[in-house]
Amino acid sequence: MYEYCHGGNVRFEPNGADFLDLSANINPLGFPEGVEEAVKNEIHFCCCYPDNKSFRLRECIADFEQVKPEWIFCGNGSSDIIFRLPFCLKPRKALIEQPTFSDYERSLKSYGTKIHYHKLEENWNFECDENIATIAKRELVDLIFLCNPNNPTGILTKRKIIENLLRSCRNWKAVLVVDECFIDFTEQANDVTMKPLLSEFDNLIILKAFTKIFALPGIRLGYAICNNKELIDKLYFHGTDWAVSNLAQAAGTAALKNAETYLKETVLFVKQERQYVKGELENLKYKVFDSQANFLFIKSPYDFDLQEELDKHRIRIRSYKNIDGLGAGFYRLALSQHQYNIRLIETVQKIVSEQNKISNKNFDNVQENICTDL
Amino acid sequence: MYEYCHGGNVRFEPNGADFLDLSANINPLGFPEGVEEAVKNEIHFCCCYPDNKSFRLRECIADFEQVKPEWIFCGNGSSDIIFRLPFCLKPRKALIEQPTFSDYERSLKSYGTKIHYHKLEENWNFECDENIATIAKRELVDLIFLCNPNNPTGILTKRKIIENLLRSCRNWKAVLVVDECFIDFTEQANDVTMKPLLSEFDNLIILKAFTKIFALPGIRLGYAICNNKELIDKLYFHGTDWAVSNLAQAAGTAALKNAETYLKETVLFVKQERQYVKGELENLKYKVFDSQANFLFIKSPYDFDLQEELDKHRIRIRSYKNIDGLGAGFYRLALSQHQYNIRLIETVQKIVSEQNKISNKNFDNVQENICTDL
Repeated sequence: MYEYCHGGNVRFEPNGADFLDLSANINPLGFPEGVEEAVKNEIHFCCCYPDNKSFRLRECIADFEQVKPEWIFCGNGSSDIIFRLPFCLKPRKALIEQPTFSDYERSLKSYGTKIHYHKLEENWNFECDENIATIAKRELVDLIFLCNPNNPTGILTKRKIIENLLRSCRNWKAVLVVDECFIDFTEQANDVTMKPLLSEFDNLIILKAFTKIFALPGIRLGYAICNNKELIDKLYFHGTDWAVSNLAQAAGTAALKNAETYLKETVLFVKQERQYVKGELENLKYKVFDSQANFLFIKSPYDFDLQEELDKHRIRIRSYKNIDGLGAGFYRLALSQHQYNIRLIETVQKIVSEQNKISNKNFDNVQENICTDL
Repeated sequence: MYEYCHGGNVRFEPNGADFLDLSANINPLGFPEGVEEAVKNEIHFCCCYPDNKSFRLRECIADFEQVKPEWIFCGNGSSDIIFRLPFCLKPRKALIEQPTFSDYERSLKSYGTKIHYHKLEENWNFECDENIATIAKRELVDLIFLCNPNNPTGILTKRKIIENLLRSCRNWKAVLVVDECFIDFTEQANDVTMKPLLSEFDNLIILKAFTKIFALPGIRLGYAICNNKELIDKLYFHGTDWAVSNLAQAAGTAALKNAETYLKETVLFVKQERQYVKGELENLKYKVFDSQANFLFIKSPYDFDLQEELDKHRIRIRSYKNIDGLGAGFYRLALSQHQYNIRLIETVQKIVSEQNKISNKNFDNVQENICTDL
């Protein structure tokens, strides 16, 4: 049976409504001003079909991304596009990182593509290296999904590594999909985005979404950018004509209105909170990987299950136990508003302190038993 | 290149905003009261992911349809489900009617299924007969799409014919999809819906949507009903987890609140308008097929292109010229509010009268020329 394996749904669990949900990586600033009004004004148009080509929205995205409108395809979240892509490209073999966002694997399985993995090593801090191009070439894969910064680690891949991969796989006409849904949370967005290479490479697809950066997961809106008319055409062909609702088109258009200011604030805020939470978790002996995004990937030095313990305090984080072969002890925590990040840290401090007491007590008991036995 | 081939998008054409759009078959009563408020109240939740299982909405749909909630899968419009189905069922061969809704054919082409056609004959008023089961059996198709009442004709297929087809194709494990998106516009809904057969047949899928009957094409919400747990599971697997936005779930739940009254009014209103428009068009010598839905399918006795002529008067209908081999002269007209149906009729009267004058003048000219020649 297919099991949902993402975060962000604790509010639908019984008694889950009052949880602090840090299991989904949404911009802690909330969605931009103007979105609510725009959606309200659009409601009465819901008796009409949406624009199947999202013309006005694509104009706004093009302006925001500094690309051509005809390079953009809008979908029902970037996830919708991830599921259309295999049907457009018909790949026999594909390559994905491990760990990474699980939808790539599922969409490839849905199509029936053989999947190769580029395993990211904990010892190398889950960084993606040149080896990805070696595997791609060795297996002659038709399609590669690369998430930058990666989810769940938040680790950035250098543009040079991706560029080499892109250049190499153009030789055998493979397509590279770079998922940049989290890139605008990073300070280095301009240095790492693959956008400057779009005009040169028609085998490059960049994925972005309003879900994370504009805090609109509930509206369903994502887009692909690609300088390949034929592929854009196929994206329209392989799925419903009306992927993007009227309300999503209105929300997206409104969200982009003051995007520059909003994104500047976001990057500053996220950096500050990342430093705070990272520092505090490191004080508690957690290994915190070098995320550049709005979430942290951590490894626990303790035996207890941090997700289960935080659940008792009505805080939900994501555990990676049994996922992508990571094993127990790995967690992803979304950064939230400052007050909630404080609550998280204070709760983790309390849990660690209590668990240490239990361990010490057990240790004392063992000592006592040893003494008694003597 | 893939070309959009539905109605409902005239408002996005240059200077198309003030058209009377009768090219999409939307409930003329507009969406039910309570939808607007529900959507407004949900906007602030758009910073959270939607419920991937649409739990509350499915409970409401189950209550409305008198089926079990676990039999329901909600999608981004029924069109989303039409595109997921081939990937769930992996059909080698499929059967569809001709003419019918074009998404069945496109979704099957998207998957790569060989398509057989059951051609509906104008001489038989485009009714679907027992022959459909003969073709299904002869070709041993794996999947059948049947639209009831059919789009674009509005013609109902008798339950007995569909039941025989269903029973027959269960023998070789073929799946029958009955699209009942327009059924609630008909007076005979209870006598023709396949719902009573769901508990007996796990190879039956019924498609419905909020698009037409609840006048919510802009919100994107449709659903499948099926007593086959494995298939429902596959529908979840083969596509994005978050097909249905928060706003669509809220709108759907609200729309169902007073559905009974709303549907009664709808059926009465549509019947009355159908009789009016049908009668007037027949007075103008148009052949009007026996639609039971909220639209009429007509054949013109005239040489002029009715869509082109109505366009000049800022009314848009759908022409079936070069579609499904129907040839020129076939049109589909959505019924609208009474004042707009009057406008349609008066405009067609004017056009026919003017065109007759032109023909007569041409005829006179020909007569004159003949006289001169003598």
